[in-house]
Amino acid sequence: MPLLCFDLIQGRSENQIKKILDVTHEVLVKSFNVPERDRYQIVREHAPSRMIVEDTGLGIVRTPNVLVLQVTTRPRSRVMKQAFYRSLVEKLEAVCGIAPSDVLVTFVTNTDEDWSFGFGRAQFLTGEL
Amino acid sequence: MPLLCFDLIQGRSENQIKKILDVTHEVLVKSFNVPERDRYQIVREHAPSRMIVEDTGLGIVRTPNVLVLQVTTRPRSRVMKQAFYRSLVEKLEAVCGIAPSDVLVTFVTNTDEDWSFGFGRAQFLTGEL
Amino acid sequence: MPLLCFDLIQGRSENQIKKILDVTHEVLVKSFNVPERDRYQIVREHAPSRMIVEDTGLGIVRTPNVLVLQVTTRPRSRVMKQAFYRSLVEKLEAVCGIAPSDVLVTFVTNTDEDWSFGFGRAQFLTGEL
Repeated sequence: MPLLCFDLIQGRSENQIKKILDVTHEVLVKSFNVPERDRYQIVREHAPSRMIVEDTGLGIVRTPNVLVLQVTTRPRSRVMKQAFYRSLVEKLEAVCGIAPSDVLVTFVTNTDEDWSFGFGRAQFLTGEL
Repeated sequence: MPLLCFDLIQGRSENQIKKILDVTHEVLVKSFNVPERDRYQIVREHAPSRMIVEDTGLGIVRTPNVLVLQVTTRPRSRVMKQAFYRSLVEKLEAVCGIAPSDVLVTFVTNTDEDWSFGFGRAQFLTGEL
Repeated sequence: MPLLCFDLIQGRSENQIKKILDVTHEVLVKSFNVPERDRYQIVREHAPSRMIVEDTGLGIVRTPNVLVLQVTTRPRSRVMKQAFYRSLVEKLEAVCGIAPSDVLVTFVTNTDEDWSFGFGRAQFLTGEL
């Protein structure tokens, strides 16, 4: 159920995009213990001038590989989120060659009644999920 | 005041897009009892590979007509949201030919002070709304 | 740390976009008292038919200059948000020629554990920020 929106700088190949999405989903499934088909991902690509990602003074150097991931989800524990952050950068580096310094993630939390996956039903309320 | 962001797969005509927006707004006005001109809609279209929408194991089959709607709003009751989900899929099917299985909706909630509709004022705080 | 997503109607020059982003960041730094490099901005441009921004009956007239800004942030006080709204429209008008009637802003709030700025760490939890 988490909805994942990726903002990237344009120029990646189909295969590179696919790998990013596959790896992120794999990490999500493990970190949050969600079903394999709990996959909702949207990618938006931008010209370099349309995406400014600095570092709040942390000394993080960004490259055109920079990736901003916005996750909308029901509540997840702090520990789960931290595991997700860690595991995500490890896998994105190992599989996609994206530096851990290029990955920014932010979460927004909502509730059971805030999701309808189809058929106009709120599946977390109906007992279907 | 709800802000509605639609993510769609590219390929729809101007008229198809217009109908989706009109129908969704009509449902919003009725379900949430908001003013007729309380309309804030943004559409983002994507290549098929940039939008992955599975089903959390619910057995829902998606087509290229799939529509992801993210709603940002002040608090709405559970009953209102459920009415919105139901009514939205009915109307989108009747008017736009979109299957109820292709409609995913998610809500994020904020508060009165989180909206400025223009002129740098927070109209829910000033008494204008 | 706030993440700022701008939705605009297409047709602005590189320089116009740059000015909007620079001005908005300057206002953010002053209103929220954040570090100079606390800058995270994404711009999405749309065909006119993909962005409908009415006025909830407030009598606000929109032009193709209309700008919708979605801010995701840790909690900010009501007073800070109101200062941000006011200062933003003043500066956007003075520097970019955007009418105060064309600026809509909405906030969504999250928490310390909802941000990872890189390296897979939640920098508000680790003490780095």
